[in-house]
Amino acid sequence: MGQLGEFGLIALLRETLKPANPEVVKGIGDDAAILRPKAGHDWVLTTDMLVEGRHFNLKTTHPWALGAKSISVNLSDCAAMGARPFAAVVSLGIPGKFPVGAVRAFYSGMKAWAGNFGVDIVGGDTVSSDKMVVNVAVLGEVKRGKALTRSGAVNGDALLVTGTLGDSGAGLHSLTHPGKKAASVRPMLEKRHLTPLPRFVVGNFLSAAGLATSCIDVSDGLSSEVNHLASESHLGAEVHEEAVPLSASLEHYCVELKKDPLRFALDGGEDYELLFTVPVKRLGEALRRIPGETGCPVTAIGRMTAASGGVVLIGGKGSRKPLGRGGFDHFGG
Amino acid sequence: MGQLGEFGLIALLRETLKPANPEVVKGIGDDAAILRPKAGHDWVLTTDMLVEGRHFNLKTTHPWALGAKSISVNLSDCAAMGARPFAAVVSLGIPGKFPVGAVRAFYSGMKAWAGNFGVDIVGGDTVSSDKMVVNVAVLGEVKRGKALTRSGAVNGDALLVTGTLGDSGAGLHSLTHPGKKAASVRPMLEKRHLTPLPRFVVGNFLSAAGLATSCIDVSDGLSSEVNHLASESHLGAEVHEEAVPLSASLEHYCVELKKDPLRFALDGGEDYELLFTVPVKRLGEALRRIPGETGCPVTAIGRMTAASGGVVLIGGKGSRKPLGRGGFDHFGG
Repeated sequence: MGQLGEFGLIALLRETLKPANPEVVKGIGDDAAILRPKAGHDWVLTTDMLVEGRHFNLKTTHPWALGAKSISVNLSDCAAMGARPFAAVVSLGIPGKFPVGAVRAFYSGMKAWAGNFGVDIVGGDTVSSDKMVVNVAVLGEVKRGKALTRSGAVNGDALLVTGTLGDSGAGLHSLTHPGKKAASVRPMLEKRHLTPLPRFVVGNFLSAAGLATSCIDVSDGLSSEVNHLASESHLGAEVHEEAVPLSASLEHYCVELKKDPLRFALDGGEDYELLFTVPVKRLGEALRRIPGETGCPVTAIGRMTAASGGVVLIGGKGSRKPLGRGGFDHFGG
Repeated sequence: MGQLGEFGLIALLRETLKPANPEVVKGIGDDAAILRPKAGHDWVLTTDMLVEGRHFNLKTTHPWALGAKSISVNLSDCAAMGARPFAAVVSLGIPGKFPVGAVRAFYSGMKAWAGNFGVDIVGGDTVSSDKMVVNVAVLGEVKRGKALTRSGAVNGDALLVTGTLGDSGAGLHSLTHPGKKAASVRPMLEKRHLTPLPRFVVGNFLSAAGLATSCIDVSDGLSSEVNHLASESHLGAEVHEEAVPLSASLEHYCVELKKDPLRFALDGGEDYELLFTVPVKRLGEALRRIPGETGCPVTAIGRMTAASGGVVLIGGKGSRKPLGRGGFDHFGG
């Protein structure tokens, strides 16, 4: 921390982070932030902790990108609820010898990413710790009763996902296995890992249009998230292997490095795309309106079934195999 | 973590933590909690991070007490705003080898403490880390426009504090200096350090009665907090040394261990009492109604002055010396 103690940091934040949202009556500088709910809205609250050596490595992650990502992962949870994020509190544990420049870069990334998405940083805590640890809690706003949950899917609903899957997992692989192969696509994949984009414009649209019956963000890999949606909705699910959307960059990387792109898509984690269900009657509408009105690509990858059917991956030739919760487990289980 | 992985922990929490507040539409189990504001209220949001080896030591702190304290420190921030806390999200980083029993004890302490004060734990995150780290964010509710801040004190206002100061600091000293001296008072002092009681009943009363012009909780020691109140209100302050409320236990401990009780009171930190200002005309009312209506003792310790007077400690014989921000600095500066 050099000479920038706790009070210095708070002053730095306070000076540079003026709240912009009307819900924020008072931001940084008191025992707590003061927030004013708008009539007719619910709020959602989510929190995530990122630990050095487990969720990020300062050798491969610049502090700026870490600041951005620590905001982004929480915005993704808001997106999955159909909510518009507007306020965040940030706790930062940093080693005493951490360079002041790196702290400033971290806050600068956080500020930029929060600012990009209209989120005010309204408070926080800075403490000393042996390894860097970041905790962010975010509040989002959604029309009353319109929050999307994991539990609303209905038997027969179509299962859709935004964007492409597996890029982040391949990006992490690239960061930890540097080399000359697939050099042209590495920056794109690594960027998807380091600074993922939260899909809350899509989440807001799904909530406002009343299109989705359930929604979750893909933080732990597709296989894990399909299982979450299915179990919370007391259903089974079928995913068509060939429908899983893969980017050309991922395909190229996997050809060059002799990897299976589907593994990254199913188990890689940290894509922060949205996985959601839509009544089958409205599938055409979803496939047309989501890209048209939010600019985000979307793909139908399967459907919800009765719970007795389990969660199944259907291969190109019609093979069926159970799709386990193989996703990224934060405990490495 | 033994065999209790992340999903196991979430299931454990979900099962045992049913929300009780009407503001909580959906608690643990989705991408975010869903909360419903009541008309005519503001919400306050605060967060605190506790790091093993810095804020607590597992050799002297039982995981149950740590769970309780991690909730309490945030409730204290709500108290300082005059708000009633109702929802918390908890992030926990724990070493892979951490015993399952200790994790259960931690959650049990957290649950008991949250339950005691009517707070629902509505979400969280559990991750693996080398050392234990706990982050809690709490939402509180206060009548619209009635939140107490640090910045509303007026020149001439009386300065008051709840309870007694220095017990927590002496309790920490006792925990780290075990011995036979002052054995009769050690448990009380240690308890005040390990499981401090948040004063939000007083905070709620001060807000509802419109009595306090400013308020802060004493987390970093009286000297530090008086300076915060003064600088946020663009004022100075005078504190009378002999008026600082000390418990008989603290006095006994300090006689036996040849320590200065005032040092614990001024710089010890973690008392989580409330420091607040009251218009001098209403001082009598405050001294009568606060103990009468909340059961909490309260003491007038000084007054606010013009900024030019600085922040001053007045000794028994009228000596004046600057009262620095000598409080507990989380960076040890």
